[in-house]
Amino acid sequence: MQEQPDIGIIGVGLLGASLGLALKQRGFAGRIIGCARTQATIDTARRVGAIDRGHSQVSEVVDGCGLVVVAVPLGAFDAVFAELGKSVTPDTIITDLGSTKLMPTELAKTHLPAPGRFVAAHPMAGSENQGPEHADGDLFQGKPCIICPDESTDSDALSAVTSLWEMVGMQVITMTAAAHDDQAASISHLPHLAAVSLVQAANELGGWDMASTGMAGASRLASSTPSMRADIIMANASAIMQAIDVYMRQLGELGQAIERGDEKAVLELLSEAKQTRDNWMSKRQEVPARQRPSEP
Amino acid sequence: MQEQPDIGIIGVGLLGASLGLALKQRGFAGRIIGCARTQATIDTARRVGAIDRGHSQVSEVVDGCGLVVVAVPLGAFDAVFAELGKSVTPDTIITDLGSTKLMPTELAKTHLPAPGRFVAAHPMAGSENQGPEHADGDLFQGKPCIICPDESTDSDALSAVTSLWEMVGMQVITMTAAAHDDQAASISHLPHLAAVSLVQAANELGGWDMASTGMAGASRLASSTPSMRADIIMANASAIMQAIDVYMRQLGELGQAIERGDEKAVLELLSEAKQTRDNWMSKRQEVPARQRPSEP
Repeated sequence: MQEQPDIGIIGVGLLGASLGLALKQRGFAGRIIGCARTQATIDTARRVGAIDRGHSQVSEVVDGCGLVVVAVPLGAFDAVFAELGKSVTPDTIITDLGSTKLMPTELAKTHLPAPGRFVAAHPMAGSENQGPEHADGDLFQGKPCIICPDESTDSDALSAVTSLWEMVGMQVITMTAAAHDDQAASISHLPHLAAVSLVQAANELGGWDMASTGMAGASRLASSTPSMRADIIMANASAIMQAIDVYMRQLGELGQAIERGDEKAVLELLSEAKQTRDNWMSKRQEVPARQRPSEP
Repeated sequence: MQEQPDIGIIGVGLLGASLGLALKQRGFAGRIIGCARTQATIDTARRVGAIDRGHSQVSEVVDGCGLVVVAVPLGAFDAVFAELGKSVTPDTIITDLGSTKLMPTELAKTHLPAPGRFVAAHPMAGSENQGPEHADGDLFQGKPCIICPDESTDSDALSAVTSLWEMVGMQVITMTAAAHDDQAASISHLPHLAAVSLVQAANELGGWDMASTGMAGASRLASSTPSMRADIIMANASAIMQAIDVYMRQLGELGQAIERGDEKAVLELLSEAKQTRDNWMSKRQEVPARQRPSEP
């Protein structure tokens, strides 16, 4: 394997194209080969400078690549891993950008010739915009990237994938795939469902005419692409159901304090939450400006 | 009453001081007299150009004012309305900025010499920043202001209060106090409680290290001032409890679809919510840029 082997990116939507662009902007010396179903997407990804060339078949892309990144929506993972299983060599290092990690880890074990070459990853970056035309070379900069190796992961694959995400500015955090999926349910999937239900509740209760900045921010995640979100939800259903239970219990506790007129208890719960969030936000802001996750 | 009578603003925190500043920046010709408990607050409000002079007693402020605006936190409304009852003339027009409207309407009927001169108002504007030092003359620009006259409201009081809020750039919407309180529970109070419970759930479930932009936006309202929020919650408890019930039912429905593996139903709920929110956001964005509510 060369020092900077060519990289294949399967799926050059917003995330895949942003990764290609970020690598090129940071001086990656190898070639970047993209895979997309349509020629139009390949052309756009080339035009924005995200890839050197592109193909519509996984097998054409991975041929000669030392590292392959799976950047398709979760719903297409099964088909892509089956393709990879037929076309990669036992040396090829593989990582992904999926929003859940148990499912890709299982697909790797099922399909790949050498599952130890797969390192599951979840860069915590995104945008409401879709498609390579919105590629942003700073999309990953300063944000956390979770990687989930296990006891079967090869150490050189682990270090190559760690370097990849660090090269585009991410802070790499390691945990098990199961821990990732539980925590993603807590801070990513649940907030999305909470936003969806806020919108549905407002439809039932009324008030859109007077809704303002607060509702706009609280409901923002409800504007995410439904098909991508549904894929994520179904792939992480049990952790999400647990998160919904905990959330409903917390909200129920707040509701009970309100019902019994217990202003002191309400004030305590509000103060506790404010302190937690303010502490977290101030830690986020300690990341130097160039590395700070951009707010949409 | 003169054409532009002096205006008294009881409470010159962020909202009261922003109102004074907005009026002056838009050419209001009368004087603006502020009321605050401390000389330091009065001095700051004068320095930022929000008021011409200030006093610590309600009676000193309202003397000679044709219009008085109650801009204190909801928890101080009872005391301020009792003071107003002792000091205003039956001609004085009174409005307020409280986040609930049934409670101030009842206080007006209890305390004021002429309740028909009171027009309850709720400008849908705010910020996480507090105090007159953060006064912003464009805070109200382009945002909705709900006013809640009833059958006993004098027509000249209604038109004076409508003019006041329109002068600072607001789009005035009229509804009953009860309808306001129900709708505010839906699009303002519930989103706050949902954010608080998201933070509490994340504390229990974990995941702060990998939390990013999505969680930051979804939890933003949890950083609001707890004491002010607790006042609002207790003043609007029954509407809020109803809103929590509807919200939990909506989230429960989504959870059940996830539990039974019904991706089609999940996708439908997500699509419905996205469409509603996108439609609402695009209507908001039709407001010309200068009039658009600023995102924090």
